[in-house]
Amino acid sequence: MTTARRSEGRVWRVTPSEPTSRTRVKRLPERAIHDEDVITAIVDEALICHVGFIHDGYPVVIPTIHARSGDTLYFHGSPASRMLLDMKQGAEVCITVTLVDGLVMARAPFHSSMNYRSVVIFGAARFVDDPAEKETAFRLVTEHVAPGRWEDSRLPTAKETKGTAILAVSMAEASAKVRSGPPEDDAEDYDLPLWAGVVPLRMVADPPINDPALRVDVGVPGYLSDYKRPGQR
Amino acid sequence: MTTARRSEGRVWRVTPSEPTSRTRVKRLPERAIHDEDVITAIVDEALICHVGFIHDGYPVVIPTIHARSGDTLYFHGSPASRMLLDMKQGAEVCITVTLVDGLVMARAPFHSSMNYRSVVIFGAARFVDDPAEKETAFRLVTEHVAPGRWEDSRLPTAKETKGTAILAVSMAEASAKVRSGPPEDDAEDYDLPLWAGVVPLRMVADPPINDPALRVDVGVPGYLSDYKRPGQR
Repeated sequence: MTTARRSEGRVWRVTPSEPTSRTRVKRLPERAIHDEDVITAIVDEALICHVGFIHDGYPVVIPTIHARSGDTLYFHGSPASRMLLDMKQGAEVCITVTLVDGLVMARAPFHSSMNYRSVVIFGAARFVDDPAEKETAFRLVTEHVAPGRWEDSRLPTAKETKGTAILAVSMAEASAKVRSGPPEDDAEDYDLPLWAGVVPLRMVADPPINDPALRVDVGVPGYLSDYKRPGQR
Repeated sequence: MTTARRSEGRVWRVTPSEPTSRTRVKRLPERAIHDEDVITAIVDEALICHVGFIHDGYPVVIPTIHARSGDTLYFHGSPASRMLLDMKQGAEVCITVTLVDGLVMARAPFHSSMNYRSVVIFGAARFVDDPAEKETAFRLVTEHVAPGRWEDSRLPTAKETKGTAILAVSMAEASAKVRSGPPEDDAEDYDLPLWAGVVPLRMVADPPINDPALRVDVGVPGYLSDYKRPGQR
């Protein structure tokens, strides 16, 4: 099953993920969501992901930059470790994206939690070799972090594109988990004289800091001077 | 080798990690740090960690809450998945903690990056069974998120403590990677009329939101009314 949806003026197509034994969330299944719009919104908002893979028989988790194109997630091999690049073509990976939205303070620590939105993607990693796809992925990763930056930069040389490790994984096997709203305590605890509620958390950007070596006649471009993270006023 | 250091008025002892083949950072080794103070500061600042483990032969990465006591990292099994709790006693885990500090905009996307502080811990997970250690870990996790909360809450019953899955891992095999400061471009690119620099990022807390079911005579406690994340003004 595929669906076409209109979002912010663009028509896009995503492949919804049918739950598998791995993506069916077992604990608190009411928090599990298999709706593709929710999944893609979380992936698109997050600045980084955590890539899990097996190296020499043990698990390794590396943070890195990513970007999405349709139902393909691209992630950057270079800032990660040599271990990631040592992966075999088609190696199993688990990519987890997490946004923390708040501290949930229940009257009982047992019921305290966080408000969060997370996505877990299981799939086989593919090293992107085709130069055109690689440059596209390179552009997507750059634009994911700061829309407008690609055209306002010294674009990669063929040698640089060759030297950038980009991996891709299908988002067909993905699921999201979201917790929001107030805490839920045991019925008998609501009468206790204890505060309960949520401390909201969000990420904000501060005004850009010039490179000390910046040309004196170059100012901060508009797409960065008003750069804001989602929810930032 | 162990060292005693003074930090913020408290004397504390941590076991420094000697690099192993896993924690020796292979790419950009100048960003690798094996200093215990740096490692513990990153772990203590982060609200969540990502736990990687192997389930049925494939890698799984789950976000969860953690806390540190000396060179032991405790993490919470419950909000994670059934898969985490299915782990064998002593199973290998990789726990990664990442703080994102800024977008590093080089003139060339090839040199663009992020400023970040991350820690990777390799170790064998131990399920905490001793009730006393478990309650201590439960308290540490609660206090890690919001210092002062434990004493201002309805403390866990023996049944709740029993029902809370806490895992522990030694931080003996840990390393940190930190990137900070301005971008570094190729020498010939500094003359280009392109902006370069850093967009700083930080997490902030907003004023607490009362549980709609809060007793009308209970106000926000002081440790939450002025709750701030590091770097928040």
